[in-house]
Amino acid sequence: MTPTRIGLRAALLTLALAAAVPARAADDGEVKDFLLDNGMEVVVIPDHRAPIVTHMVWYKIGSADEPPGKSGIAHFFEHLMFKATTNHAAGEFDRAVSEIGGSNNAFTSYDYTAFHETVPPSALEQMMGFEADRMRNLILTDDVIKTERDVILEERRSRIDSNPQAVLDEEVDATLWQNQPYRIPVIGWMQEMEQLNRPDATAFYDNYYRPNNAVLVVAGDVDSDAVKAMAERTYGKVARGPDLRPRIRPVEPEQNTKRTVTLTDARVSVPSFSTQWVVPSYHTAKPGEAEALDLLAEILGGGNRSRLYQGLVVKQGIASDAAAYFQGTMLDATNFTVYGAPRGDARLSDVEAAVDAEIARIVKDGVSDDELERAKTRYVRSMIFARDKQDDMANMYGSTLATGGNVKDVEEWPDRIRKVTADEVKAVAARYLALDRSTTGYLLPQQQAGN
Amino acid sequence: MTPTRIGLRAALLTLALAAAVPARAADDGEVKDFLLDNGMEVVVIPDHRAPIVTHMVWYKIGSADEPPGKSGIAHFFEHLMFKATTNHAAGEFDRAVSEIGGSNNAFTSYDYTAFHETVPPSALEQMMGFEADRMRNLILTDDVIKTERDVILEERRSRIDSNPQAVLDEEVDATLWQNQPYRIPVIGWMQEMEQLNRPDATAFYDNYYRPNNAVLVVAGDVDSDAVKAMAERTYGKVARGPDLRPRIRPVEPEQNTKRTVTLTDARVSVPSFSTQWVVPSYHTAKPGEAEALDLLAEILGGGNRSRLYQGLVVKQGIASDAAAYFQGTMLDATNFTVYGAPRGDARLSDVEAAVDAEIARIVKDGVSDDELERAKTRYVRSMIFARDKQDDMANMYGSTLATGGNVKDVEEWPDRIRKVTADEVKAVAARYLALDRSTTGYLLPQQQAGN
Repeated sequence: MTPTRIGLRAALLTLALAAAVPARAADDGEVKDFLLDNGMEVVVIPDHRAPIVTHMVWYKIGSADEPPGKSGIAHFFEHLMFKATTNHAAGEFDRAVSEIGGSNNAFTSYDYTAFHETVPPSALEQMMGFEADRMRNLILTDDVIKTERDVILEERRSRIDSNPQAVLDEEVDATLWQNQPYRIPVIGWMQEMEQLNRPDATAFYDNYYRPNNAVLVVAGDVDSDAVKAMAERTYGKVARGPDLRPRIRPVEPEQNTKRTVTLTDARVSVPSFSTQWVVPSYHTAKPGEAEALDLLAEILGGGNRSRLYQGLVVKQGIASDAAAYFQGTMLDATNFTVYGAPRGDARLSDVEAAVDAEIARIVKDGVSDDELERAKTRYVRSMIFARDKQDDMANMYGSTLATGGNVKDVEEWPDRIRKVTADEVKAVAARYLALDRSTTGYLLPQQQAGN
Repeated sequence: MTPTRIGLRAALLTLALAAAVPARAADDGEVKDFLLDNGMEVVVIPDHRAPIVTHMVWYKIGSADEPPGKSGIAHFFEHLMFKATTNHAAGEFDRAVSEIGGSNNAFTSYDYTAFHETVPPSALEQMMGFEADRMRNLILTDDVIKTERDVILEERRSRIDSNPQAVLDEEVDATLWQNQPYRIPVIGWMQEMEQLNRPDATAFYDNYYRPNNAVLVVAGDVDSDAVKAMAERTYGKVARGPDLRPRIRPVEPEQNTKRTVTLTDARVSVPSFSTQWVVPSYHTAKPGEAEALDLLAEILGGGNRSRLYQGLVVKQGIASDAAAYFQGTMLDATNFTVYGAPRGDARLSDVEAAVDAEIARIVKDGVSDDELERAKTRYVRSMIFARDKQDDMANMYGSTLATGGNVKDVEEWPDRIRKVTADEVKAVAARYLALDRSTTGYLLPQQQAGN
């Protein structure tokens, strides 16, 4: 859960980006939400501006749900979902998407695993057919397991082990989270990935790949009644699985210490640091706190209008970058992160001190009504931009529904953001961003080890 | 797994020290080891010098075996074992021990939970009867659970939460161990202890409190045939439980970073630090490595003849204390720890630098044959001293058998220690004690936060 700077954090993207389909502006059609008889939830987001539909299936299973010692099985299973089923050879689904000029992909995160295709509406039912098929009909042989396990091991070597930032991030996460499973990397620990086997995969499939553990999100040029009829003809035929236990996971004890994690590596050219705190997510927060944390991140370090960017990069000129993040859409408690890297001859310790000073200033003096209003405007506008991109919109509903929220939570979110007061922003900063109860990662070049 | 300076590390001692019975010197009688029909292992260590017997039951269940989110259940269960059974009221067992002038106690660690009594030999079968009874016949009511849960919560408040060293140690452990369950405190995390309930306790009892998951150790003025007959009459009547799965737990990934954990607290008067590394235990090490680590700890920091003590306390006079520990008797990978505290006006950072320098010196130049011989002599003598104390002897066999070893491992241990070479000591220091891949805890007084 350390920042990856780009894209959906911590999600591992996989396979088959067949052809990029540019998204267009969406309309304001009413979102429909219903259940199939087998317990599968369906959300339809109308968007009639272009003959395109985004079809996503979200399973409420992520790496934080993995059994002890089986880290990586959720992501591994995402890979296995692209293998042969009793009805389709491996690769057939991908080829079908390619041939109609669509795109498809999948990702795994701490709390969910999602599969999606963007295609012309005429192909929607075909997509549903393929997805419904692989929900239950995968052929999991030892051969398939062995081959694909080699793929994820190589993925780990190339994405993590050969990347000092990624190596550091893993150990920072595991230092920040001492009990909650977000400490375990989504891709898994190498020594456990190597042992994943067919019984593990079969048990995982049978437990979690069930309609009553899935959310279907369809956004695009479709009619909700038609989607419902198609979903019933395809997904509706999949038998409901056993009821799943509530996702109650170990939670984090209160942190009493200041922790640091330092990686010194010859491959690093510019030093950097990031400091993280455990904070509530939208799912665990008291009313208004997560919204205040979102605005705090925006004001402190959300883009180039933020205090950190304006202060450290523009005015003082000591940082090449400085930012703050809040990862609110999580099932359990989440993290708030600040980040900085020096520019030119500036020292990393100066950048860190300047970031700390900006935090201390908010804790002490709060934020002005004016900058709060501007942050709200920027923030709510980002929601409108998201509405404007079909797949962002589908992601917003899917990730919310897969982490304990509902359609109303998404729709009322701009109003809840607008209600946050300056005092509430100051209060969450004071409550959560204590420097003597934080976890900081340092990435240092070999020669600057003493910096 | 940070040092507690005294006693059996990480073990939580409980209840009922009725009357202290001084142990006497043991003879060299042959140790007998056998199984009862129900799978219970029995070890008899003859010691006829005094009319005393130590009776211990070791269950191969510790805090590292707890289900996720149920931390503290192993220790909680140790408490519950002192409650009423279908045959005896609560307190009856303790009173029986008291009345015959014996002593009894129990402790829980990461890998085992043990119950023991020291009594006249004539009371041995009575002790067996009580222990065999509570192995299966406890009455676990909601009332019992609630009352005893309050006791362990209070125990946590008084032992951990009101003790800055203990608070720090917990977070150091959880920072050192990022995947292996030794990161979880034996007493449990408060928020999980509060939720422990009757179904948790019953499941734990039914899974683990079984003769085929227990080792009986009897040391003292007894005859092994007589012990066997008594054990068959008491424990032998307890039905074997279902076979337990092998104790394969999540293991630690390789550490790539230097980690620190700092607690600054007004209650601290003298600052101190401890640095820890993950190293193999006797159960996980390649042949000879654990023995070499034992001797490395002895040479570097085992008592007042060690390099750390002689260098930092005696010669330089900068430290009030400096030591090294190796906790070898663990089922999984374990920790090697160095520790230091400044004296007078010396700075903590000077003490830490001096400790680091002593480690670097061993890594670079190794140890002399002469000091290795002296360390072996001291070390093997400590084994002879242990033989001399009945309960230490029983502990040595019990802890070894509960962590994957056997009677032969205990008996051949002095020979294996004698075979370690100076090169092997240097090799384990070089391999495991890298300062840029370590975890250091700092305990600082409020006013010296910047030290």
